[in-house]
Amino acid sequence: MSDNRVTVLGVGLVRFSRYPDKSAEDLGREAALAALEDAGIDFKDVEAGFYGRVERAVGGGMRTFGELGQHGIPVTNVELACASSSRGALLAAGLIRGGLYDVCMVIGAEKMGRGMLGGGGEAGYQTQMGMFLLPGLYAMMAQRHMHLYGTKKEHFAQVSVKAHRNGVLNPYAQYQKELTLEEVLDSRMIADPITLYQCCPTTDGASAVILCSEKYAREHTTRPVYLTAWAAGTPMYVSGESALAEGPTKVLADKVYEASGLGPEDVDVVQLHDAFSPGEVLGVEELGFCRPGEGGPFVWEGNTEIHGKKPVNTDGGLLSRGHPMGATGGAMITEITRQLRGEAGPRQVNGARVGLLHNAGIGGINVMAFQV
Amino acid sequence: MSDNRVTVLGVGLVRFSRYPDKSAEDLGREAALAALEDAGIDFKDVEAGFYGRVERAVGGGMRTFGELGQHGIPVTNVELACASSSRGALLAAGLIRGGLYDVCMVIGAEKMGRGMLGGGGEAGYQTQMGMFLLPGLYAMMAQRHMHLYGTKKEHFAQVSVKAHRNGVLNPYAQYQKELTLEEVLDSRMIADPITLYQCCPTTDGASAVILCSEKYAREHTTRPVYLTAWAAGTPMYVSGESALAEGPTKVLADKVYEASGLGPEDVDVVQLHDAFSPGEVLGVEELGFCRPGEGGPFVWEGNTEIHGKKPVNTDGGLLSRGHPMGATGGAMITEITRQLRGEAGPRQVNGARVGLLHNAGIGGINVMAFQV
Repeated sequence: MSDNRVTVLGVGLVRFSRYPDKSAEDLGREAALAALEDAGIDFKDVEAGFYGRVERAVGGGMRTFGELGQHGIPVTNVELACASSSRGALLAAGLIRGGLYDVCMVIGAEKMGRGMLGGGGEAGYQTQMGMFLLPGLYAMMAQRHMHLYGTKKEHFAQVSVKAHRNGVLNPYAQYQKELTLEEVLDSRMIADPITLYQCCPTTDGASAVILCSEKYAREHTTRPVYLTAWAAGTPMYVSGESALAEGPTKVLADKVYEASGLGPEDVDVVQLHDAFSPGEVLGVEELGFCRPGEGGPFVWEGNTEIHGKKPVNTDGGLLSRGHPMGATGGAMITEITRQLRGEAGPRQVNGARVGLLHNAGIGGINVMAFQV
Repeated sequence: MSDNRVTVLGVGLVRFSRYPDKSAEDLGREAALAALEDAGIDFKDVEAGFYGRVERAVGGGMRTFGELGQHGIPVTNVELACASSSRGALLAAGLIRGGLYDVCMVIGAEKMGRGMLGGGGEAGYQTQMGMFLLPGLYAMMAQRHMHLYGTKKEHFAQVSVKAHRNGVLNPYAQYQKELTLEEVLDSRMIADPITLYQCCPTTDGASAVILCSEKYAREHTTRPVYLTAWAAGTPMYVSGESALAEGPTKVLADKVYEASGLGPEDVDVVQLHDAFSPGEVLGVEELGFCRPGEGGPFVWEGNTEIHGKKPVNTDGGLLSRGHPMGATGGAMITEITRQLRGEAGPRQVNGARVGLLHNAGIGGINVMAFQV
């Protein structure tokens, strides 16, 4: 088992945008065709499929793979809100590592609309207590962080400034326009300290990732990117200081570092879950890139810029690339793959050899390490 | 890998019924506690969870496992309509066989309501062509079967008569009342030849299945039931005679027979997808218990009765036990497990040692072989 390094063979995206005239299945098929071309293999070589989608998932995987010329392989719809397609990738990776498949494809797709998480999510006591969904949760973590560590609202806002600067360099990003710190701070208040431009936009899009066994990769690619370690878990409700954690991110990151033999200092490029700007400030702490409480200054001083010490969300992240829930995990894998292959063009991190991914959704968190 | 036979360690159900005052999470937790008791292990021994649910799945796995005292393990929502929890079980089985986990739990739960598949399913051309959903599909297959083979409407109706007779013997079945052939035939016509009592009812319920590695089973149970082979696939749209198949059931069954070294003649007890009565007539053909076209007489002559040649849906099946979509696959595994352990009480098939499962949903079909 340990000799079978799971490999990213191909990745593909459709530009994240708004597509009123296309179905999620249309978008998913386009991303899949791009990934197949990138991998240089035929769809008939794919042995199993996973489909990450949150809304109207029933039959979605069947229809999307059907449009590719489905040859009867199993396709499973995986739902984990914002972390659906990265969880699909982890299931595929586990089955490949265990020797059950050589080639799997994960398609993620979503057309976002208002109130999509209303029926699910924290439909229990949190909503009943008057807390509106995710911006409120991130805002509470941000307020606690400000109280404990003196983090400033400008630190959070800077996350979005940096994200939009990176988005300009990514032709697949929904927003390709820079924002000043003032524009971010002066936009409409959503949940103090989070203003509108510190929230991910409403986005349609799709991603596709083809994973394979190391043996298959040796025969089919000269530029393998290895998925060398991963860990997945579920947020637990915790109290006090540790509630700042979005969930067990630190625990999962530590598992991934141990399994891969890497440390935070080895990571060259990071994709982390910045659905709202505090996500990056908290994330760089939990992933071990700075000490607890230092996330604000760490971001403010430019460490997470493309040419900073620890480049984060080089493609614009959820804030500027966009966040069509089911597609986001696959988009994160796509960016890390392009960075580690040296194919990221104007946003390339020089000499990137190790990538770390953190994707969080209602119901679960995935952390993955990639290496060349 | 081949030395690691995946084992069913524990199973649990809540009685299938209507539960207006309970949530799906409540039902799922009750089923899970029953499965843990049946397995004789602690929840903290479970390393990964899968949650089969179709409606309002977002956050459902997290909440359901959370109520059990979630200790941070990954929980993945798996959606495959009527085949959700059997697909969850196959993913768990694959990861166990591959050595990634020793113990996984699959919870399936659903509260059924009207129009649940309206937003998904065959939202494409079939619906646009005026075909209402699944009763229409089964009716068309039944009509074709009648045309080709002379199958009679009484043959289909007899499936429901037998199902309800078995349901009386199952305290977990929604309906525990016999129906005469005349009652079935005279109930309201839904889609000719399918009358109301040949359609699965509207049901709430939950199931839980604990799967483990052979090594773990050796240390924790004296009555292992082995999941020795499985195959999963996706229906393809096919034309002509083969359209009678619900999908690739025959292909999948042949794979399972080959992988397990078993033949149809070795199967002692069967769970198959009788969402509508033609499901059993077609299913016994596709699974190889009789020749194509002979399914009607095969059922009519009593071969699928509990003490017949090939007992099918001994627990009442979807027609009488009920069909809460996300829970059905786990309920099928539960019945086969109880039969192979000799714990099926008044509906016990004498000396049952091999069970075959067929669970079909919009998006996929699962076939599994169990042995003691």
